[in-house]
Amino acid sequence: MAGTKFAYVRNFELPDPLLPDTYLVCRLDGHSFHRFSDEHGFAKPNDERALQLMDHAAKSAMIEFKDIMLAFGESDEFSFLFRKSTNLYNRRHSKILTTLTSYFTSCYVLYWSQYFPDTPLRYPPSFDGRIIVYPTERAIRDYFSWRQADTHINNLYNTTFWALIQKGGQTTTEAHATLRGTVSATKHEMLFSRFGINYNEISQRFKKGSVIVREIVAPESSDKGENLEPSMHLTRSEVNKTREESPERSGVPDPPTSIPPHSPSTDQCETPPFDPLRQKRFKSKKKNKLETTVEVLHCDIIGDEFWLARPHLLEN
Amino acid sequence: MAGTKFAYVRNFELPDPLLPDTYLVCRLDGHSFHRFSDEHGFAKPNDERALQLMDHAAKSAMIEFKDIMLAFGESDEFSFLFRKSTNLYNRRHSKILTTLTSYFTSCYVLYWSQYFPDTPLRYPPSFDGRIIVYPTERAIRDYFSWRQADTHINNLYNTTFWALIQKGGQTTTEAHATLRGTVSATKHEMLFSRFGINYNEISQRFKKGSVIVREIVAPESSDKGENLEPSMHLTRSEVNKTREESPERSGVPDPPTSIPPHSPSTDQCETPPFDPLRQKRFKSKKKNKLETTVEVLHCDIIGDEFWLARPHLLEN
Amino acid sequence: MAGTKFAYVRNFELPDPLLPDTYLVCRLDGHSFHRFSDEHGFAKPNDERALQLMDHAAKSAMIEFKDIMLAFGESDEFSFLFRKSTNLYNRRHSKILTTLTSYFTSCYVLYWSQYFPDTPLRYPPSFDGRIIVYPTERAIRDYFSWRQADTHINNLYNTTFWALIQKGGQTTTEAHATLRGTVSATKHEMLFSRFGINYNEISQRFKKGSVIVREIVAPESSDKGENLEPSMHLTRSEVNKTREESPERSGVPDPPTSIPPHSPSTDQCETPPFDPLRQKRFKSKKKNKLETTVEVLHCDIIGDEFWLARPHLLEN
Amino acid sequence: MAGTKFAYVRNFELPDPLLPDTYLVCRLDGHSFHRFSDEHGFAKPNDERALQLMDHAAKSAMIEFKDIMLAFGESDEFSFLFRKSTNLYNRRHSKILTTLTSYFTSCYVLYWSQYFPDTPLRYPPSFDGRIIVYPTERAIRDYFSWRQADTHINNLYNTTFWALIQKGGQTTTEAHATLRGTVSATKHEMLFSRFGINYNEISQRFKKGSVIVREIVAPESSDKGENLEPSMHLTRSEVNKTREESPERSGVPDPPTSIPPHSPSTDQCETPPFDPLRQKRFKSKKKNKLETTVEVLHCDIIGDEFWLARPHLLEN
Repeated sequence: MAGTKFAYVRNFELPDPLLPDTYLVCRLDGHSFHRFSDEHGFAKPNDERALQLMDHAAKSAMIEFKDIMLAFGESDEFSFLFRKSTNLYNRRHSKILTTLTSYFTSCYVLYWSQYFPDTPLRYPPSFDGRIIVYPTERAIRDYFSWRQADTHINNLYNTTFWALIQKGGQTTTEAHATLRGTVSATKHEMLFSRFGINYNEISQRFKKGSVIVREIVAPESSDKGENLEPSMHLTRSEVNKTREESPERSGVPDPPTSIPPHSPSTDQCETPPFDPLRQKRFKSKKKNKLETTVEVLHCDIIGDEFWLARPHLLEN
Repeated sequence: MAGTKFAYVRNFELPDPLLPDTYLVCRLDGHSFHRFSDEHGFAKPNDERALQLMDHAAKSAMIEFKDIMLAFGESDEFSFLFRKSTNLYNRRHSKILTTLTSYFTSCYVLYWSQYFPDTPLRYPPSFDGRIIVYPTERAIRDYFSWRQADTHINNLYNTTFWALIQKGGQTTTEAHATLRGTVSATKHEMLFSRFGINYNEISQRFKKGSVIVREIVAPESSDKGENLEPSMHLTRSEVNKTREESPERSGVPDPPTSIPPHSPSTDQCETPPFDPLRQKRFKSKKKNKLETTVEVLHCDIIGDEFWLARPHLLEN
Repeated sequence: MAGTKFAYVRNFELPDPLLPDTYLVCRLDGHSFHRFSDEHGFAKPNDERALQLMDHAAKSAMIEFKDIMLAFGESDEFSFLFRKSTNLYNRRHSKILTTLTSYFTSCYVLYWSQYFPDTPLRYPPSFDGRIIVYPTERAIRDYFSWRQADTHINNLYNTTFWALIQKGGQTTTEAHATLRGTVSATKHEMLFSRFGINYNEISQRFKKGSVIVREIVAPESSDKGENLEPSMHLTRSEVNKTREESPERSGVPDPPTSIPPHSPSTDQCETPPFDPLRQKRFKSKKKNKLETTVEVLHCDIIGDEFWLARPHLLEN
Repeated sequence: MAGTKFAYVRNFELPDPLLPDTYLVCRLDGHSFHRFSDEHGFAKPNDERALQLMDHAAKSAMIEFKDIMLAFGESDEFSFLFRKSTNLYNRRHSKILTTLTSYFTSCYVLYWSQYFPDTPLRYPPSFDGRIIVYPTERAIRDYFSWRQADTHINNLYNTTFWALIQKGGQTTTEAHATLRGTVSATKHEMLFSRFGINYNEISQRFKKGSVIVREIVAPESSDKGENLEPSMHLTRSEVNKTREESPERSGVPDPPTSIPPHSPSTDQCETPPFDPLRQKRFKSKKKNKLETTVEVLHCDIIGDEFWLARPHLLEN
């Protein structure tokens, strides 16, 4: 930048480092997505395509930002967990926050047509973001429990609400009135007895949200892993190559194959068998740039199992 | 959000209000745009299409955020000036910063194909952003002078640099060496004598950057204004209507007509004749939601003329 | 500090610069001074000695910190104005805030016995402090108006309240009830008709608070000035010398002569005759370290007169 | 405060909460104490009286602020550890920082004459302060290790430096030159062979600094404890009563009896025998306002023993 007599204005740019050795959570929220979902014809109570697009953007962000260990998404929001030792951009607050928000937004718009091939974007969607600093493992566990509990509560409410409207013929005002003050059990019962919906059989994606997790690739099994789930191992250059070859580029929308389809295997929390060497290997290979993959799951993260199987997420 | 036992984690979300009654400048910078411009075949030293796309995104942001009074862009960066009395999002730092960064990014990706109809995006472009708080008019004037002086210095260097390469057959290393230590006059002379380029005749857009300014529509002339430059008066709903009707929506890229083409009229700083009533009208109409338009200019903003003609920009 | 393996903990010390080119106001408040004034037998509604001690501490702070241009005190609080261009401690927030708070506290305790020779301190008094950043002259004017208006309102209330108790025989509960909902005129009337007190004749110190101002010494009159008011021109070493010679040091409390006694001359706002050269001289002598003095006044600072006579306070 | 038209200036007072659930360390440093110690004739390399006064002020602060669990002092600095769950002043940064800084300063001046009965203060001493937020136990352990290692290094240097001057007849310049580049062992040897000083026999206070720790009073032994060390159990009202009766108040300086004299018992880290019930009792009594005392020690805090014996300090 120019060394002119005006350059003193840079002195007003104040430093904004985030406290070292703390977990950083960046949560993005869709801006006015109530209107956005209406204008773009999102299915109610959940639009599978919209959720897959969110997952795609989040997963892309995790491939781009290696220090994000975990992300959790529901509806139009996504939370990203940076490992506590991250030194990304020297932990500058605005730089981390805006780069991630911008990248996620960019993916959302760029990949939109893969998920909504017949619905062009009517106007630019946007997201706001914030970074929250958490000092302890306990707070991180509770943060993600808070979001997943929220997913559950919202989804049960919305599922019943829209059943009352779509199948029960109620207005939105009537449906809210019907639900006022009801507890979970009442909603379950209402869904089953009035509409024949067994809530337990509803897609895990809707009930649990999306858990995108950085997994460590065991060296001896990495080939196998790539064979099974090639999309998980894309490096940056491969991602680009894939995109180049994609028919989407010639104007025909690409089916969203790069995100594994909703399948029973990801409905369960795929906890790998306990491996006492996992953590040690993690540390010992640190200098060798440990190979990782990014997986999309729809599993419980409130209980201990998910976390015990992945001690690297919190750098225990 | 759920009122669960986990909700205490919200206590870690700390307030981040920006100092009241100060100018806010938000500067966005393209992330790794050196590589991005290479991969997408940007013309050197300046790519008109890329600059128009930046302008389009910036102008859209100003239509969306009414408290942005002025923006200045060059290359892959844009600076936005919020009026000092803005109370957007209660002046919450992260909220303002991310919403604007995200919206700009979204526009950039969404409108890309209008400017690069034959060049699909190979990967998601992104921007970082920062907000700088300025307490005085003087500092704001100097901030924008700083950026425009930078534009001039960079453009003169780059114009000469690429002439040496494209017309002079030098390598990049040789061109840098040729230019090392040269002053402006030498570069001007080099351009003219060796390559027949009169730097003064180069497009104002390249030499001055893009000045996007919120202008006040004089009540009596507002109809005329709309007739002359319809794109300036788009309200949000009109913007959407326009988009709906756009052929772009049916898959065929739209020529970038919504941004006025580079023309002599905008090459000059269109300072309106001095109007002593302008400022008074501005204030007296405040409650009536003064009608404004957003104009793209390529004019000098270092001197006083631009600012004296638009006292509302700094709320004198 | 030691270059040991533990020194990394310094990385947790984050920078905290205050925005450049803004006014800094540091306000100190006595901590639990309601109790403190009770335990040390302060006169009600105003204790002249206690106020003089506060002034002494504030004036000492202004002699120590040359960038404080003005201070205003009432009751157990004092506000200090740093000039907007101050670069004290590189404008580090905690450093400025704590050094001033500590110095003021130190003076308060050290000079206590000069004002309360027969009342030893029963426990350590303390003050809390905060720094508020103000971007404009207008806000600074309004800040000091806010404090002086507060002084007036509190003093009128307290004067009437204590008259009702001390002369009217009411309990505190009764006195509060008597005053509930009364306007200024009613209190004036009550004071005069029931207790023969003409509020206008009450000491300016109580009605206006203490205004401690850095005045510029006119070069040609500086000798005269020193002769007239020696205490204003004390340099650091002179201050120390004076203290050494003071009888206080041999155990006998010193009468508080170093603060000019409450006198008619300071009851009026001593606005010097308008001097068109004052400001110019201020600037032209900047490099020569302009000589200043620190004066204690009890005058109006809400109107323009005080400020117009002292343009250097706000660096107009 | 007055509800006047000026009260809007309060909007410039921005919130400054510290991150919840983190350790807060507040470190105070004497301001220009090199000069202060010269002007007040401090003994070199260590002045026992000055250190005892620092300890007295720090201990008083810990009696006043119940959430300070530990303090460490050396020379003219003191670091205070607030427990991570403290909600003092709603964790407002400036409020905590200034109140503690002011209280410490006030104690230092108020108790000065107890330690320097023949040396009146020549000018007001002051301290600056800062708060550092630490997220982990590890960082807290390392912080205090850092300070104690610093104490050791400085004391060994200063002890040798002043021996060279006071006993070796060197100038300060010569002494610095003599020590340049020497390691610890060399200094030990120099002290012993040239001056007959066995560094190991030097007072623990000088070598280890002052460790002021909040200890939990075991319920069954609290009477005994009070008998042995009455000064440790002073409540606020008792402190005041003591002060009132103190002969110091009648002008005759009080010998510093309220701080236990330097004795062998405090030279050792008085680790109580391991008690498996200690931690449980701590928690179970939380609601009953656990009784604590504040002890001054001069012991190692780099090793584990000190911390293992006091799990309540870090709320393990």
